[in-house]
Amino acid sequence: MKKIRVGVAGYGVIGQRLADGVALQDDMELVGVADVAPTLPVMALYEKGMPYKLYTAVPEKRHLLTDRGIPVSGTLEELVQSVDIMLDATSAGIGAKNKELYKKHGVKAIFQGGESNAVADVFFHGYANYEKGLGADYLKLTSCNTTGLIRAIDCIDRAVGVSKTAMTIIRRVADPGDYHRGLTNALQVDAAPSHQALDLMTIMPHIEATGILVHTPVTHGHIITPIVSTKKPISKEELLELFEAHPRIRVVRLSEGFLGNASLFKYARDLGNSRGDMYEIAVWEESIVKSGEDIMFAINIPQEAVVIPENIDAIRAAMGMQSSREEGTAKTNANLGMK
Amino acid sequence: MKKIRVGVAGYGVIGQRLADGVALQDDMELVGVADVAPTLPVMALYEKGMPYKLYTAVPEKRHLLTDRGIPVSGTLEELVQSVDIMLDATSAGIGAKNKELYKKHGVKAIFQGGESNAVADVFFHGYANYEKGLGADYLKLTSCNTTGLIRAIDCIDRAVGVSKTAMTIIRRVADPGDYHRGLTNALQVDAAPSHQALDLMTIMPHIEATGILVHTPVTHGHIITPIVSTKKPISKEELLELFEAHPRIRVVRLSEGFLGNASLFKYARDLGNSRGDMYEIAVWEESIVKSGEDIMFAINIPQEAVVIPENIDAIRAAMGMQSSREEGTAKTNANLGMK
Amino acid sequence: MKKIRVGVAGYGVIGQRLADGVALQDDMELVGVADVAPTLPVMALYEKGMPYKLYTAVPEKRHLLTDRGIPVSGTLEELVQSVDIMLDATSAGIGAKNKELYKKHGVKAIFQGGESNAVADVFFHGYANYEKGLGADYLKLTSCNTTGLIRAIDCIDRAVGVSKTAMTIIRRVADPGDYHRGLTNALQVDAAPSHQALDLMTIMPHIEATGILVHTPVTHGHIITPIVSTKKPISKEELLELFEAHPRIRVVRLSEGFLGNASLFKYARDLGNSRGDMYEIAVWEESIVKSGEDIMFAINIPQEAVVIPENIDAIRAAMGMQSSREEGTAKTNANLGMK
Amino acid sequence: MKKIRVGVAGYGVIGQRLADGVALQDDMELVGVADVAPTLPVMALYEKGMPYKLYTAVPEKRHLLTDRGIPVSGTLEELVQSVDIMLDATSAGIGAKNKELYKKHGVKAIFQGGESNAVADVFFHGYANYEKGLGADYLKLTSCNTTGLIRAIDCIDRAVGVSKTAMTIIRRVADPGDYHRGLTNALQVDAAPSHQALDLMTIMPHIEATGILVHTPVTHGHIITPIVSTKKPISKEELLELFEAHPRIRVVRLSEGFLGNASLFKYARDLGNSRGDMYEIAVWEESIVKSGEDIMFAINIPQEAVVIPENIDAIRAAMGMQSSREEGTAKTNANLGMK
Repeated sequence: MKKIRVGVAGYGVIGQRLADGVALQDDMELVGVADVAPTLPVMALYEKGMPYKLYTAVPEKRHLLTDRGIPVSGTLEELVQSVDIMLDATSAGIGAKNKELYKKHGVKAIFQGGESNAVADVFFHGYANYEKGLGADYLKLTSCNTTGLIRAIDCIDRAVGVSKTAMTIIRRVADPGDYHRGLTNALQVDAAPSHQALDLMTIMPHIEATGILVHTPVTHGHIITPIVSTKKPISKEELLELFEAHPRIRVVRLSEGFLGNASLFKYARDLGNSRGDMYEIAVWEESIVKSGEDIMFAINIPQEAVVIPENIDAIRAAMGMQSSREEGTAKTNANLGMK
Repeated sequence: MKKIRVGVAGYGVIGQRLADGVALQDDMELVGVADVAPTLPVMALYEKGMPYKLYTAVPEKRHLLTDRGIPVSGTLEELVQSVDIMLDATSAGIGAKNKELYKKHGVKAIFQGGESNAVADVFFHGYANYEKGLGADYLKLTSCNTTGLIRAIDCIDRAVGVSKTAMTIIRRVADPGDYHRGLTNALQVDAAPSHQALDLMTIMPHIEATGILVHTPVTHGHIITPIVSTKKPISKEELLELFEAHPRIRVVRLSEGFLGNASLFKYARDLGNSRGDMYEIAVWEESIVKSGEDIMFAINIPQEAVVIPENIDAIRAAMGMQSSREEGTAKTNANLGMK
Repeated sequence: MKKIRVGVAGYGVIGQRLADGVALQDDMELVGVADVAPTLPVMALYEKGMPYKLYTAVPEKRHLLTDRGIPVSGTLEELVQSVDIMLDATSAGIGAKNKELYKKHGVKAIFQGGESNAVADVFFHGYANYEKGLGADYLKLTSCNTTGLIRAIDCIDRAVGVSKTAMTIIRRVADPGDYHRGLTNALQVDAAPSHQALDLMTIMPHIEATGILVHTPVTHGHIITPIVSTKKPISKEELLELFEAHPRIRVVRLSEGFLGNASLFKYARDLGNSRGDMYEIAVWEESIVKSGEDIMFAINIPQEAVVIPENIDAIRAAMGMQSSREEGTAKTNANLGMK
Repeated sequence: MKKIRVGVAGYGVIGQRLADGVALQDDMELVGVADVAPTLPVMALYEKGMPYKLYTAVPEKRHLLTDRGIPVSGTLEELVQSVDIMLDATSAGIGAKNKELYKKHGVKAIFQGGESNAVADVFFHGYANYEKGLGADYLKLTSCNTTGLIRAIDCIDRAVGVSKTAMTIIRRVADPGDYHRGLTNALQVDAAPSHQALDLMTIMPHIEATGILVHTPVTHGHIITPIVSTKKPISKEELLELFEAHPRIRVVRLSEGFLGNASLFKYARDLGNSRGDMYEIAVWEESIVKSGEDIMFAINIPQEAVVIPENIDAIRAAMGMQSSREEGTAKTNANLGMK
């Protein structure tokens, strides 16, 4: 069977990981990645010997790359012409511009959470609405927090039905290595409801969701504490069972030494995962509590890598590679090593 | 009328502020403070010219103070003999030992949140159960988070009745100046339910409370996001009115520049408040959201000073200075400048 | 004797402290402060009952203040017309524009470190070149780091002669309450030599200075570690004596509990200093070491308040209030409570 | 040729990386690693399918591991009996105890910087004193900061002679994932001279060294700013050439986007390095400045991995695998991929 040809536009925090994720799929071919300048990720690609072909996103700035000796395989437009589908991980706003190029060449595309909803036909999550993405031309993925959160809520919803959720999002404010943003010795409150709650309702319109987001000066993993109202009662033990059976959710314990978001980052490094990444969200067993009939728990969102599996799912849906959520996500999980 | 004579044991973060708070009361006399060693607060007291008399808590270590030229007015036991009531702000566990001294001399005492509940007859909060403290000999105050949280919950409870609350506590991990504890680039999760929820239920047994606590690497103010189930419906506007009418709750707005806990600390400094302290908790207007019939909001707890008013209330209750919650708290508020 | 009338333009972190510092001088009158919008400092001024008169810096935006009920005493131009000298603590670049107004009304002015050198006739430091400021119309103060650093270097220079210094500046990246800048879990290196070294050479051209600056994610106090080459040998004990005799240098010890920049901030709060400020730089006794004939030590720069004394000195020099460095700085020190 | 058999005691931050480093050597065999409890690194080893054999360091606590299903290949003593040399990366103090076991079985051992100097015959650095380690039974490595610092100083010393150095060490206070130590919004000063300067003089007794160490609340990489007095003059360009030719020193530029320690950590992740590690120290080209005849610069020390190459060198020296510094370090560098 012919492999689906995939290109990645934007080789930054997300773009790099998308490229790595595609390269791990046995039924996809990563044709190349596109970027403009010799950023640190591009320089690292060069130092590694160009495992991926690099295309220039702005042909008249090709010299920015070639002046450093970095080989350029062509232009973004040439990359687009060589693929079946593009993963667009450019900075917010660029994706909408790139879409013209994708349209011109009749190439499908998947945009990231920072892009406006208008850019896409379908606002997509691999587990929550895979079927909506089937055959679609332009999909937009949820942001990292929403992607992880929906995994947990969808998991409960399919088992016992979720009617309502209210959450606190304790947001990491920067990624490791970021110097363009940060916060020092301060918590910052956003106006409520947070966009994650609104996005959740767009994907899962039968659930009433709201939430408050607080930024914290850390770089490893958001922590979300949803309170969930279910249609059928659910016990702590039943919730644990649901989460333990989910390939993209990892149940961890304080008693094992998983004390917070930084433990999970450390563990991913100790596992030898590329870039110290983790695809799974984590739930702390000791955090699960009942509040009347509702249930509350704490989840960890590894912000840099969490969206990769759902992006791969999106390729599968858009290209019709697997026609059901079960098959599509299972194939992604197998190729990414999530059991 | 004779002023109530008050002593303070332990001149640390809380002890200093208790002494300052008592000194502001027109119907109390601060007889003195007791400590052991020339800590930074004790050295600052000395540099300021000893506005408060200092007693040694461990007579055989008096030289630790006198060797630095710090005048010592006597022993803790002598201080106890000169007062009507002691505020004990010593490190956790010392209060229980000191209690023997208080008992020996028939002096009432008020302990802080870190001490075990067994040390006291009444677990006290000025607004929630003032009457329980009337005439009591040994009271224990709630911790900083619980004190601030109960102010908000009690305020709602008296207006529309509270049946249930589930909260996320985003805890500052150290005070400014702390070197004995801290956290670097990590969020830390505690086993749930948090003690603050349990303590709230001890003070307000008619409410079902639970919560998850997450430690964050900041020093200015905890942020709590409770979700509250009320007996009668309450709108965002009604909640705002309740909070705006409460002398110990300050309503602030993101639009005014109050972006998080650090803004409130800065504002207290700009106000010229002693030590840059704030007695009031703050609620962000833009954080208030409805979740079905429930209501959710974010409050800021200035951890160093928030318990001072309720401690002063406790003196009033224990000494029978005012016989009702309304009178007792009003007198404290007036003397501390809270309208 | 008639008091010198002073106005302050820009009521932010520095402007507030300049106003407070002027208000403490027995031979100066703070006529008022000017700002544009209801920032947190302006709202705090209002909540305190307007101890200082407020003037609008942009007349057509007066409503921004009056809409909140904040009384406005006039325009910046009216303030300028009512004073002998202006302290300009506006954002970098505004001072140069304001200078036109000062010139128009023949009013002297003192600018802060962020303004370009071209705005002033004299680049000023109260201890290092007071005489240069005598009678000058436009002075520019050194920045916080340079001000504190020069205090220490000038102190050594006057005793034993300084020929060369190379320093590391461990810079706090934000002030408490800042949300517009910050850094999270990262050290940031600047291109060397740092501007502080260059500025030192402008003020003290007989010294060769260089340095490396590293930004750190903290908010309380820069730490500088200069290595100083002296003309005559100096021992650790002699250096200590020099520093202990300097009214704007505080010698502290790790053994007393001064463990770092945060201890000094805490101590200033415990002292009851307004805003928890400290005017003095601090030197750690245990940090002083010899490197061959050179001497090395660590100083703490309280970034928010350190420049206030030298600003007051600048008024004294510009207005000819005291004709010598000794008299001018002594008067400032006495009024600010530094012995 | 028979491979040298190596065991690792202590599978923590350093032990894991030592094991990985040994496993990369084509002339060594990693027999196994020893630890006590199912820590996160041990659990990660298990989740990865036990690429390294695990031995229990405390036989009577074997069940701590086996209860989790983790296979245990024997005891530490059995491991010791199966190897030619042990790398001891246990917590400080344990190494001295383990030494009895190593002696009993006539096995050589290499201890880490936290162990007391008395434990070893030679205080070792691969580049500075390789020959001293030749055939030695017990070697102790320098700590991470000292290891990286000596690389730079030794490199200069061999070219132009170093007579003196004074440095500021801006120390990261914790590793990513640490919860047992940390610092929040504070810089902490240590008594000078720092141990790194003293250790440098032990290894390179012809150099006079001193320094001040300041702890900072970050987790990625120490930054050291040494000022170096050389016997022959050296220019910025000559220093750059020396550093660029050194296989364990990486010259980076602010202009390329390497803005601080976090950029280097990010880059190592982007390179796909295991655990996001970097073996090389880095020097910022734009940080190099002359101070009279002296030269000053800033280096980055990746604290988790920097000591691995010198540990491998130590095996080579102790086992007599290569008889010269040039051959020994070249072999290590080739196997670890440093050119």
